[in-house]
Amino acid sequence: MALMTSEEYLQSLGKMKPTVYVDGERVGNFVDHPLIRPAINITAKMYAMAQDPDYEGVLNTTSHLTGRKISRFNHIYQSTEDLQRALSMLRVTNQAVGACNMRCLTKELINPLYDTTFEIDRECGTDYHRRFKDYLIFLQDDDRMASAGVTDAKGDRRLRPSKQFDPDLYLRMVDKNEKGIIVRGAKMHQTGALTAHYLNVVPTTILDEDEKDYAVAFATPSDAPGLIHVFGRHALDERRYTGADLGNIKYDMHETMIIFNDLFVPWERVFMCGEYRFTGPLVENFIANHRYSYGGCRPGTFDVLIGAAKLIAEYNGIDRASHVREKLTEMSFLNETMWACAVAAAVQGVKKPSGWYQPDKLLANVTKLHVTSIPHELGKLAIDLAGGIVATLPSEKNLNNPEIGPLVRKYLRTKAELPVEDRMRIIRLIEFLVQGVTIPADYFGGGGPATQKMIIERETNFEYKKRLAKIIAGITEEDSENKAGKMMIDGVVAGCCDAYGRESCPLTQRS
Amino acid sequence: MALMTSEEYLQSLGKMKPTVYVDGERVGNFVDHPLIRPAINITAKMYAMAQDPDYEGVLNTTSHLTGRKISRFNHIYQSTEDLQRALSMLRVTNQAVGACNMRCLTKELINPLYDTTFEIDRECGTDYHRRFKDYLIFLQDDDRMASAGVTDAKGDRRLRPSKQFDPDLYLRMVDKNEKGIIVRGAKMHQTGALTAHYLNVVPTTILDEDEKDYAVAFATPSDAPGLIHVFGRHALDERRYTGADLGNIKYDMHETMIIFNDLFVPWERVFMCGEYRFTGPLVENFIANHRYSYGGCRPGTFDVLIGAAKLIAEYNGIDRASHVREKLTEMSFLNETMWACAVAAAVQGVKKPSGWYQPDKLLANVTKLHVTSIPHELGKLAIDLAGGIVATLPSEKNLNNPEIGPLVRKYLRTKAELPVEDRMRIIRLIEFLVQGVTIPADYFGGGGPATQKMIIERETNFEYKKRLAKIIAGITEEDSENKAGKMMIDGVVAGCCDAYGRESCPLTQRS
Amino acid sequence: MALMTSEEYLQSLGKMKPTVYVDGERVGNFVDHPLIRPAINITAKMYAMAQDPDYEGVLNTTSHLTGRKISRFNHIYQSTEDLQRALSMLRVTNQAVGACNMRCLTKELINPLYDTTFEIDRECGTDYHRRFKDYLIFLQDDDRMASAGVTDAKGDRRLRPSKQFDPDLYLRMVDKNEKGIIVRGAKMHQTGALTAHYLNVVPTTILDEDEKDYAVAFATPSDAPGLIHVFGRHALDERRYTGADLGNIKYDMHETMIIFNDLFVPWERVFMCGEYRFTGPLVENFIANHRYSYGGCRPGTFDVLIGAAKLIAEYNGIDRASHVREKLTEMSFLNETMWACAVAAAVQGVKKPSGWYQPDKLLANVTKLHVTSIPHELGKLAIDLAGGIVATLPSEKNLNNPEIGPLVRKYLRTKAELPVEDRMRIIRLIEFLVQGVTIPADYFGGGGPATQKMIIERETNFEYKKRLAKIIAGITEEDSENKAGKMMIDGVVAGCCDAYGRESCPLTQRS
Amino acid sequence: MALMTSEEYLQSLGKMKPTVYVDGERVGNFVDHPLIRPAINITAKMYAMAQDPDYEGVLNTTSHLTGRKISRFNHIYQSTEDLQRALSMLRVTNQAVGACNMRCLTKELINPLYDTTFEIDRECGTDYHRRFKDYLIFLQDDDRMASAGVTDAKGDRRLRPSKQFDPDLYLRMVDKNEKGIIVRGAKMHQTGALTAHYLNVVPTTILDEDEKDYAVAFATPSDAPGLIHVFGRHALDERRYTGADLGNIKYDMHETMIIFNDLFVPWERVFMCGEYRFTGPLVENFIANHRYSYGGCRPGTFDVLIGAAKLIAEYNGIDRASHVREKLTEMSFLNETMWACAVAAAVQGVKKPSGWYQPDKLLANVTKLHVTSIPHELGKLAIDLAGGIVATLPSEKNLNNPEIGPLVRKYLRTKAELPVEDRMRIIRLIEFLVQGVTIPADYFGGGGPATQKMIIERETNFEYKKRLAKIIAGITEEDSENKAGKMMIDGVVAGCCDAYGRESCPLTQRS
Repeated sequence: MALMTSEEYLQSLGKMKPTVYVDGERVGNFVDHPLIRPAINITAKMYAMAQDPDYEGVLNTTSHLTGRKISRFNHIYQSTEDLQRALSMLRVTNQAVGACNMRCLTKELINPLYDTTFEIDRECGTDYHRRFKDYLIFLQDDDRMASAGVTDAKGDRRLRPSKQFDPDLYLRMVDKNEKGIIVRGAKMHQTGALTAHYLNVVPTTILDEDEKDYAVAFATPSDAPGLIHVFGRHALDERRYTGADLGNIKYDMHETMIIFNDLFVPWERVFMCGEYRFTGPLVENFIANHRYSYGGCRPGTFDVLIGAAKLIAEYNGIDRASHVREKLTEMSFLNETMWACAVAAAVQGVKKPSGWYQPDKLLANVTKLHVTSIPHELGKLAIDLAGGIVATLPSEKNLNNPEIGPLVRKYLRTKAELPVEDRMRIIRLIEFLVQGVTIPADYFGGGGPATQKMIIERETNFEYKKRLAKIIAGITEEDSENKAGKMMIDGVVAGCCDAYGRESCPLTQRS
Repeated sequence: MALMTSEEYLQSLGKMKPTVYVDGERVGNFVDHPLIRPAINITAKMYAMAQDPDYEGVLNTTSHLTGRKISRFNHIYQSTEDLQRALSMLRVTNQAVGACNMRCLTKELINPLYDTTFEIDRECGTDYHRRFKDYLIFLQDDDRMASAGVTDAKGDRRLRPSKQFDPDLYLRMVDKNEKGIIVRGAKMHQTGALTAHYLNVVPTTILDEDEKDYAVAFATPSDAPGLIHVFGRHALDERRYTGADLGNIKYDMHETMIIFNDLFVPWERVFMCGEYRFTGPLVENFIANHRYSYGGCRPGTFDVLIGAAKLIAEYNGIDRASHVREKLTEMSFLNETMWACAVAAAVQGVKKPSGWYQPDKLLANVTKLHVTSIPHELGKLAIDLAGGIVATLPSEKNLNNPEIGPLVRKYLRTKAELPVEDRMRIIRLIEFLVQGVTIPADYFGGGGPATQKMIIERETNFEYKKRLAKIIAGITEEDSENKAGKMMIDGVVAGCCDAYGRESCPLTQRS
Repeated sequence: MALMTSEEYLQSLGKMKPTVYVDGERVGNFVDHPLIRPAINITAKMYAMAQDPDYEGVLNTTSHLTGRKISRFNHIYQSTEDLQRALSMLRVTNQAVGACNMRCLTKELINPLYDTTFEIDRECGTDYHRRFKDYLIFLQDDDRMASAGVTDAKGDRRLRPSKQFDPDLYLRMVDKNEKGIIVRGAKMHQTGALTAHYLNVVPTTILDEDEKDYAVAFATPSDAPGLIHVFGRHALDERRYTGADLGNIKYDMHETMIIFNDLFVPWERVFMCGEYRFTGPLVENFIANHRYSYGGCRPGTFDVLIGAAKLIAEYNGIDRASHVREKLTEMSFLNETMWACAVAAAVQGVKKPSGWYQPDKLLANVTKLHVTSIPHELGKLAIDLAGGIVATLPSEKNLNNPEIGPLVRKYLRTKAELPVEDRMRIIRLIEFLVQGVTIPADYFGGGGPATQKMIIERETNFEYKKRLAKIIAGITEEDSENKAGKMMIDGVVAGCCDAYGRESCPLTQRS
Repeated sequence: MALMTSEEYLQSLGKMKPTVYVDGERVGNFVDHPLIRPAINITAKMYAMAQDPDYEGVLNTTSHLTGRKISRFNHIYQSTEDLQRALSMLRVTNQAVGACNMRCLTKELINPLYDTTFEIDRECGTDYHRRFKDYLIFLQDDDRMASAGVTDAKGDRRLRPSKQFDPDLYLRMVDKNEKGIIVRGAKMHQTGALTAHYLNVVPTTILDEDEKDYAVAFATPSDAPGLIHVFGRHALDERRYTGADLGNIKYDMHETMIIFNDLFVPWERVFMCGEYRFTGPLVENFIANHRYSYGGCRPGTFDVLIGAAKLIAEYNGIDRASHVREKLTEMSFLNETMWACAVAAAVQGVKKPSGWYQPDKLLANVTKLHVTSIPHELGKLAIDLAGGIVATLPSEKNLNNPEIGPLVRKYLRTKAELPVEDRMRIIRLIEFLVQGVTIPADYFGGGGPATQKMIIERETNFEYKKRLAKIIAGITEEDSENKAGKMMIDGVVAGCCDAYGRESCPLTQRS
């Protein structure tokens, strides 16, 4: 089957019947709901871009399983170049929608699951990898989107899943039979859940032997009976009802809390069931893959913010002031830092035995840790350039009132030749990008900063660096056993160079 | 007349008939409008607190003009202690409402106008100071609130008021007669405009000789014909219509753009009219007075945020984690920094010839410059502690739905003993305080950071510091003319110590 | 006896015979040793300034014990004004020497000891306070300087004093008899140790019951037998031997490690001996008093750095560039932040039962925490303005070489009218202030940042702030028992206002 | 000729006779001068590492000109992989010496000169590229090091080279004849000048038509008559005379100010002479190439600092404290950020017509801008972990004194099993790395932060980002002429992707 057009995508969603609640009320036609449609518009844009010859090489690629043309969002990385191309795709697509591109959620879980199912089968003689590849070919060939269910309700964060006062605070299998398994629990913050055809689900944390029932991974249609989507609110969501003062006029974020109310999953869609020892590798795979991605998509969104900041500076007549130029330059500097860290994580990616390329774990976490602070800084700088009016601008609806419309227009104008609407819309866009949903999402998508620090600490080769210091300080002599040369190569291999996947390490030229 | 109770205050507002537009529609009963009432609740709370014996010394004081008991919001500072007490009032009142206290806008302009009208009269033989004192006694005795109109529409920021393509982009006198003057223009970001009985207006910038018509200061009732209030939007404003997910359940911000559509002001309420040379001192007075205030009120609001951050950490079970304690400590550290800078600006205040005490200009600007960055940092830390759910929490309305209410309740609970509503409300409060209106307001209230830097540069005694460096480096000898001793006293006097008002300089013990 | 002149001070030092080692060698005439003399010059300057009529009110005051004129360095604070005046003294004196003023070490320990000896006597019926007052009058009347011994060797920081592998890693009493006590141990980082006549010693940490022998406080002459001073190195110390490229041509830092090699202390100079329960209050007193002081002295030193930075910008011709002005402004902003926090800590000081005024503990720690990061930032900005030449400037000695002197002079000149020596000396001064000893000292004097955070956490009234948040969020109703009014007063009292010493709380006007 | 061993390198230096002054005195045997030898040790280590089979692929490569084996330091980048391998070489070599590797100065100028001479010849029909290649083959085959002369004396920074009061403040040709040219001027901050056989020289800035005489580039032996090296001081330099308390026991920095006292350069070594229009491209080439390099070498040096910080934490017993772990993690995070930005600049390098690969200009400047602030932060964190003793540690020489040696040893010990010397040396190493020369060098090597910001501003495609914002905000429609698709590809190409050198753009898959 060929790749879907955006119309075919919308039709495919129209046939689905998910259970959806918004603000306490059951939603019938979710596709046209004013709070959900803007997110569906985003995904439809992804399908449209894939049809555009200009984006051919960006959004599409060839399946390593079938040799057929597929969406790059549904691809398993086969090289460090694939890792880099994914970043370019993320930046371009976020630029196009000025928000999350939604569809990248598919690649976030298919990549780690591909690798982990391979490893489980290899060690346990199970059948997961075959099942997963069948499912993957189905997604690829039908050009489907699948969102990603990771974060559990979690309850008391001090306590392990099995020690919570309610055992369902982490999603778990509550029953199984010969046809499949029954799962119960909830997944929070499900970006793109209602723009997707399928939902992939994995555990959110590393599990112990007595937590086998929590060690489940699977896929399910987004409208399966037993799944309930509860709409998550954003700061500016209600404006979508009136359609005014939107900032981003066509696109918006969308997250749901998904409740698994004793959902049935057939065995063919179960990819882990009790193999708790593989939750560690699965989480690691997910983390590396998800966290490096933020260095692709966020710079795309913030390209839009930087453009808006430059425009509002021009509209206000301050664009040549040196402090304004300094701030715009700072915005670019910070934005490119996120990008550069992700590119380096991609370049230093490593090939796993399954054939999948994993981004460098250390640099993937360095990337994401920047994404927990740089967006705040960018938001602050954009507000600095736009002024306090971001928080006090009257509604654009006033312009249509015959009595005050002309007066509001008169006083919000800054230059004779500049339409007032342009200035108001750019201010609203900055409000959308800064006051809207993005920043907390940046903070916590893929885990808050404390979790990145944990990995950075672990992936840093402190022992190697200590030995360097001892030699330089004259505490340890270099000798045959403790040779600087060897140590350094080893150290760099551990620290960055096995990045090159051992086949082509530029340090050693050995493979 | 005695101080008003909150009921009397509400009745007094009820008698007013201001022209108000919200989102393009004319508002009849503004007192009960869901988007305006929360701000009126704040001001009513200020009147209530003034009646509470516990706050007697905080919110009330004695008029230096009449000897009668008045609101401290309507007081002219007579000492550095007055400057300090104002800070305590601001912190306590902001703590009580978790937002701007609204009523402080009165003191922001009456203090600088008191001094500047004195100076104009002294030099020009005019009658402004007498008029102003009459008006002040009227405000004090009737216990009225007056908001503060400062920021003009401004148009193209590169151009001076008289060079804009539309001469009304800065407010100006367009006519005058024997009864009074006619003014035209607009004032932006008018906090508390509809919770106030009066509006005080001053120029926003220093004016030149050819801009005399812009050099006007006056007072007007908030509901005078010719005044139009256009409601300014906030990120979360529409939630007030449904009354759910408010965060701050009773109080909210409120700003309007005020259009002066050929407003008439009688001479008795005109306090400057063409004396352009005094716009400099007036702006200086306003800046020093307004900017130091931020170190009183913001710490009060952020006390609430710190409390909410501590609570959510406890609700989530992470409050003993070291990185959480570190972040809460950092929040307190930053909050107290704003406070401390303001206290120092108060302590180092100087007495002006009019008898008014002006906060130290250098430290007032140091205070405000912190307020342009610390709130962002506090917001970031609070979001870190609350988690991504700040941007994805489903509506509290879901709890009442019989089908999904129990499920949402089940999964959002973190501890058996903790009501789900408590956790949801604290998350909403953090959303309100961080995603809501506060932060851009912090940034720009009293001018953006570039304007503070301008004053800090000017108020820093670089010449004195250069001489210090030259002596230490051996470039200049200390000698009789260029004596370290004398220089240092001079330098400190210029830099900080005339702060003590010359009567009691702790450095010299000379007056 | 009258206050000493600087000549009398130098003579008084000349009569002392301390045991001193520099770089492994015993020093005979310590007063003229090139590495020690620059610190003695500083202290001599303090005595000189006290004789200068211009500084009469700054450096001198009246003893509350004798009514006689004394050095303010030897004074016990009797009011919040005293706390403020001490800050002015510190800023002015550090400005005069471009380094630590050395003599303030006296006030750092006499103030907390005055209060703690009072408390011990009150509870235990001991005689320490009388002894201490006698000693204090001796210091005051003879106009002596006493340095401050606090930080022990500490060994393994995980282990308590009594659990170290060597019991002497914390100073302790090893014997006592009817004449006095014998102590053994070491005190690190003793600023001004060899410029002082006496040394005051207190425990560095809070002690337990089984650590009574470590709970000793006392005074001893700096040249007592049994005391050994081992000179501590600084980055630029060896330049003092050749006398070139000094930066600060006359003054320099000086620290020693002092070894107490079974030192005898007579009972009349023992101020604590086993009363371990008072080590907590003593440490608290010391911390509050010492940490707020940094906001007085450091701004003085950095006034010199700011002056040097401005000069070098002028010498290089970049002083009007906007980024340069921005950086100089930032330097002033940061410097005044330290100052303002200290002023606020002084203003909010509290009177203890002994009559001593203690700076506000929360704000004292806020001050010091800034001092652990702002100096780094100031150093970075100064280097930015000076350029890489701070690390590559050839020696001024080259100027005297007939062959290359003219060439070096030719190429280091930036303007025809500017002597090369001036530029070189200002670069050296910046090197001295940034690369020299100051910054690590700023970091750790009075404890590193982690210790300030501990106190800030403890002194923040989180419970009060939590209650504020609950009321605003609608979780708790205000009611008679849990009344906002009362709570707020209590909260502010706990948080800042008992600062005012209860006699004159501006919030309540009670007492 | 084969690559030199380190012994051969030392012999080759021994045959040179440069004119050298240290602190005003002419130096005879510069190779053994205690202040110069540590830098020569570094370069000798580079030659030794190149002989080590473990580093074969790291430090050596194949000449694209001769096909012979050469030092990678003498290589012209032929691919983005070459750009990456250079970074690995820089990190490994800086790790080995705990300072600058010195020899990289060669590649800093040969790469940009290779490209610019090609361009001059192509446009002007000159012979520079042939000359340069001959010179390059000479360097490669003889395995020589050449340092890099860029920064002029500069005089008054406001004025252009031709407007200085002394025309020699920028290096210029003062005469020429048929054999060659005569140049006069000075180059500052010449790292590795005395460890190199040759010196390459280029203009420091972009020149105008009336500044043709300043537009000279050439190579000269380091000991040519007419060259005078004046040693630049470092904070800790004098310790090399006594050999104690060094920190880095074998290696140290070394910079000279080089005076060109009418130096003669034969035409065969002249690579630009008056072609002022090519000073722009040459400076651009140099900047991109030099600034990205900092992301290779600095992380290597700071690997040593991180190791030392971890060690001192262990020695002091605090390594498991959470704030200590947090700080060490932060150090790694920051260090890898510099590295990642450089890797991305390499990956996105572009092929120039000469065949040379230029690192991405935007990301190269992002890298370097981080290097102007991250090292300060790393230094601050290292000092935090080491404690104030970095600025007060007594000399190791005390350990040898029979009287106080045992006492100093007793009190500086932290654990029974840990030799005191180890702790002292690691403290000294931290002092060396933080207080020593590195940080100002990081700041200004390749230009201060203001110069990086200039390039970042220019290389950011603000126009493209503005169009993105207008489409999202609904100001501009996407249409055939202004199509999002096309714009985005264009924008990304301009912003990052032409990075891939157009041959293999991962966005378009077009070549």
